[in-house]
Amino acid sequence: MMEALTYTITFKVEGSKDLLVPVLSGESILEGAKKANLAIDAPCSGNGTCGKCRVQVLKGAVESKETRHIPPDEYSAGYRLACSTTIQSDLTVFVSARALAYQSRMKVTDLSTSREQGIFAALQEELRDMGLSGDHGLSLITVQLEKPGLDDAMADRERLLRTMAEQLACESESIRFSLYALRKLPHLLRDTEFSCTGVLRQEPDQRYTLLDLFPGTEGEAPLTGLAIDIGTTSVSLLLVNLKTGEPLAVGSAGNGQIRYGADVINRIIESTRPGGLERLHKAVIEVCIRPLISQVCHTAGLPPEQIYRVVVAANTTMTHLFLGVPAEHLRLEPYIPAFFSTGTLRGAELDLGVHPDAEVEIAPSIGSYVGGDITAGAFSSMIFKQEALSLLIDLGTNGELVFGNGEFLMACACSAGPAFEGGDISCGMRATDGAVEACTIDQDTMEPTFKIIGAPEQKPAGLCGSGLIDTIGELFRCGIINAKGRIVREGKRTARDEWGIGSYILAFADQSESSRDIVLTETDIDNFIRAKGAIFSAIKTMLTMLDFPMDAIEGVYVSGGIGSGINVQNAIRIGMFPNLPLEQYHYIGNSSLSGAYGMLTSRKAAEKVLEIGRGITYLELSAHPSYMDEFVAACFIPHTDGSLFNLDT
Amino acid sequence: MMEALTYTITFKVEGSKDLLVPVLSGESILEGAKKANLAIDAPCSGNGTCGKCRVQVLKGAVESKETRHIPPDEYSAGYRLACSTTIQSDLTVFVSARALAYQSRMKVTDLSTSREQGIFAALQEELRDMGLSGDHGLSLITVQLEKPGLDDAMADRERLLRTMAEQLACESESIRFSLYALRKLPHLLRDTEFSCTGVLRQEPDQRYTLLDLFPGTEGEAPLTGLAIDIGTTSVSLLLVNLKTGEPLAVGSAGNGQIRYGADVINRIIESTRPGGLERLHKAVIEVCIRPLISQVCHTAGLPPEQIYRVVVAANTTMTHLFLGVPAEHLRLEPYIPAFFSTGTLRGAELDLGVHPDAEVEIAPSIGSYVGGDITAGAFSSMIFKQEALSLLIDLGTNGELVFGNGEFLMACACSAGPAFEGGDISCGMRATDGAVEACTIDQDTMEPTFKIIGAPEQKPAGLCGSGLIDTIGELFRCGIINAKGRIVREGKRTARDEWGIGSYILAFADQSESSRDIVLTETDIDNFIRAKGAIFSAIKTMLTMLDFPMDAIEGVYVSGGIGSGINVQNAIRIGMFPNLPLEQYHYIGNSSLSGAYGMLTSRKAAEKVLEIGRGITYLELSAHPSYMDEFVAACFIPHTDGSLFNLDT
Repeated sequence: MMEALTYTITFKVEGSKDLLVPVLSGESILEGAKKANLAIDAPCSGNGTCGKCRVQVLKGAVESKETRHIPPDEYSAGYRLACSTTIQSDLTVFVSARALAYQSRMKVTDLSTSREQGIFAALQEELRDMGLSGDHGLSLITVQLEKPGLDDAMADRERLLRTMAEQLACESESIRFSLYALRKLPHLLRDTEFSCTGVLRQEPDQRYTLLDLFPGTEGEAPLTGLAIDIGTTSVSLLLVNLKTGEPLAVGSAGNGQIRYGADVINRIIESTRPGGLERLHKAVIEVCIRPLISQVCHTAGLPPEQIYRVVVAANTTMTHLFLGVPAEHLRLEPYIPAFFSTGTLRGAELDLGVHPDAEVEIAPSIGSYVGGDITAGAFSSMIFKQEALSLLIDLGTNGELVFGNGEFLMACACSAGPAFEGGDISCGMRATDGAVEACTIDQDTMEPTFKIIGAPEQKPAGLCGSGLIDTIGELFRCGIINAKGRIVREGKRTARDEWGIGSYILAFADQSESSRDIVLTETDIDNFIRAKGAIFSAIKTMLTMLDFPMDAIEGVYVSGGIGSGINVQNAIRIGMFPNLPLEQYHYIGNSSLSGAYGMLTSRKAAEKVLEIGRGITYLELSAHPSYMDEFVAACFIPHTDGSLFNLDT
Repeated sequence: MMEALTYTITFKVEGSKDLLVPVLSGESILEGAKKANLAIDAPCSGNGTCGKCRVQVLKGAVESKETRHIPPDEYSAGYRLACSTTIQSDLTVFVSARALAYQSRMKVTDLSTSREQGIFAALQEELRDMGLSGDHGLSLITVQLEKPGLDDAMADRERLLRTMAEQLACESESIRFSLYALRKLPHLLRDTEFSCTGVLRQEPDQRYTLLDLFPGTEGEAPLTGLAIDIGTTSVSLLLVNLKTGEPLAVGSAGNGQIRYGADVINRIIESTRPGGLERLHKAVIEVCIRPLISQVCHTAGLPPEQIYRVVVAANTTMTHLFLGVPAEHLRLEPYIPAFFSTGTLRGAELDLGVHPDAEVEIAPSIGSYVGGDITAGAFSSMIFKQEALSLLIDLGTNGELVFGNGEFLMACACSAGPAFEGGDISCGMRATDGAVEACTIDQDTMEPTFKIIGAPEQKPAGLCGSGLIDTIGELFRCGIINAKGRIVREGKRTARDEWGIGSYILAFADQSESSRDIVLTETDIDNFIRAKGAIFSAIKTMLTMLDFPMDAIEGVYVSGGIGSGINVQNAIRIGMFPNLPLEQYHYIGNSSLSGAYGMLTSRKAAEKVLEIGRGITYLELSAHPSYMDEFVAACFIPHTDGSLFNLDT
């Protein structure tokens, strides 16, 4: 066997500096990009199916075969899929900003719209009314010490504790002094004439921990917490002033693990490779969360060490990888997580850069595929205290569902796949600039009208999840596609290729951002139908198991970050959501982040989420005999059982 | 002003690889060595007085003036003091192994002699008798879990806690699961058929922390702790099997901070320079303690993460620098430490490489110059429970004293300076190979007989502390020096230089390791007399203050690592120790390390040390009006007040 030769790839990255990396002959360009820590988007994990990892080879020899994702003219211009192209010489490769989607601004729930702010304000009020607010255990205390002298040589720490204990009416042994604060103490006291303000945490055993020290009085010292939602696709942060409960800053970014696969299964597989667990752990903490923390702290004008309490909500796999705990048994029968809950951790244990003694709470999981995002969401959606039978639908890369009310709760998860986030769809993309997020189609002319993310003059670049639901809903409403998703009308906007696969042309080359036609093919529609079928059949299976008809559902709470929101009517029209009156649907933004916010501002809320987690019954759909039948039945528009849907709704 | 030029020094290090480092013209070779992280011994902190930083310039231009430490022939051969020689071109510099003394094997209390083992065994027995043994809070528990299945999908952590809580008869919420153990859990359970042994710590609030997990049963799992003594000059470690209290391995090395100055004052000054505190913190942890931990763990065959409890005893300055807490106020009136005690810290906070959740206890200080080494020593010497009035003399770079009994304890510190450890003495050296550690002199012939550290054929290289005491005691006994330390006999062994300074020739060039005469000058003897005078006058001042005569002392406990032990008769003869019957003297080895050992194996012992610390009265000698007079009076051999000493003792 010949030894592999070593070459160098020079990545010319749009909007960034060049990256050089040594590679071996025969490796793929995608592998080279991973070595260069360059996060080329590859939601299909590099098996050539998603077509997202398009790069342009400017110089050098490669081997690759033709693919439907690269038209012949682009192929001649050097465009290739990075995953399916092997290196045969030194290369110069151009990587467009779009291929680095995870670095782009993700449009997730970030309180940037008045609608989201309204949802959040309502939640704050409800938490206050429920007495689940402000009991985060942190407080400020200002002390004025007697100055030391030759006849009073008590050490600084003991001097401070003596006065503080007097004010708190406790023993000074009941106050633990964090090393972080101790390091600040000697200079601070002498800079402030022995007067300062301490950040205290009351511990569950009624003792205190002195976390930090500031000059001045309570009003000048910060009291800050951080809520984190780690989604498979994107990560969101909310920095909170714990004195008032008000947000100080928000931030979000793509999950840095995306380069290792779009869904949890591919991430778990990557985690079992040598060094993989560490890689994924770092990819989310170092590449993603720490920079985001720096960003929100910069916005708020405080250093990360002044974050004293952190709450993390994430699905079960993300929680394992965030903590660096082996996740492989999540996908091996009998699908056992390493943990449901973790107890309280400390900032220093996770290298988050926050205060080393910060409490870190993790929202509890209840099963391999129903995680802390759902227990947090079940809390913030408030379905746990409804009389009315309610359904929470969290649309992420995994679709997760909770059904019930104040009496019982049941949860399940289904693999919707990456379609809602732009994977598996030739013109699919994440909800970033250029994404069509809403669409109507004229029934007569078949001409579409778009709402596009980005600046007013932004041209369309593809479809994000909400735009995809709209488009397919509109195609069906206009009779352009039939119940099986086949194109059944002819005209300027429809086409059929040499193999007979029909398509709808969303935008012609001269109107699109890429100067290529944007096309939704029957293959794309098939992929989408499977995704929406997974969601609907999961709802149906769960209700059937509990012996409820679909119309027993009295309220539906839709959460997730697949776009700015979903046109529910279209989602019902295509058979993704149950056919219920529209007023029963409530869009609640990122319920996982909201739940983490609740846990952050209140220990009683955190306890409530644990209690909810213990109370939820987990339904493993893959173990349920009727789920497959339900799924097959749901893979039509809207459904094989027409009685479930009334198209005039 | 001319800009400094950049040159390169190539350090050719005896027994090691070459080091290249960029330097600026005008910097000293010692500064260059510090940049290269090369720890050239400079106990005088580079002011040219100790003569220890001898290097040989092999190539290149330097500027330096002549010094009494370098004879003319050696000066022509390129020998220079690194501290007093500035760089004027690229250089090649030879550094002998001796100049790197801190890296050498330090002869400190390390249980390597049967005497030390005997002292240690007696302490172990006494602690057992006192019920201060074994209550370290750590225990092992073996569990056999039910295996999970599709119908029992409880997560690993909750499954383990359920069984463990049953066995412990507590709630599973009362057991905290360390993240370290959680990361091990999934694979361990599946590798062991769901049977394993946990390392538990009982917390003061009666809850438990699960620290670690092992396959197999209690017998196979380790339970390890570590005692650390951080001296100004050297650091000692004792790795202990906490199941039995038996030592597993010992280790010691020079304190990595030595390059920044020999005594605490110079270290504190260095710590106030930009980045200095961090440098000193790292110099002791990264350069010294972590490698020593690796070494003792390697000897014992276990990884450092399996150390679950750590106790550190050190003087006040060393404790501050170890923890990275600003120490500068220790030397500024009114001499206030940042802390006396710290409460329990965690391994991860100090980056020791031990288990991240290991408890780290710090022996409490009671003043700026009486630290945890003394509270630990007051404990292990057992003077706190004696009826007899007892004196603890800890001979380090600082001399520290505790006097009292079960009723009261008083402590003070005096700056003995580096003489006992080889500084300030032209032929002085630390207690490493080649050091004369004991000496007798024939009264008639004036010929000396030595006991030398090292192999049987080892030639003498210089005097360590105990050898120095012996030599000066013998010179006085033989009438070779008078009460003022002046040479008063003539012969082959004595000489007088051109300025009239007398000296005693310990070894002629042909019998010495360096092939140079080894000489003790009157200047050396003066320096030593000041050191011994500081010790004796401190004892005298303290007793006078308490209104006790010297012979009220009923027992003296001598500790410290200045040699293999001290010839007490000689120490009395020269007026360093009080004139008491020899049988009242007890050499107790490294009492700081022994005290740390006691605290390690017993939380009650650790509590006792805190209690002792609170009970000791601290006497600030510098604030005491009569100390200076006492010191001047003690700067004779044996003393100006002859009645205090009876030379026939």
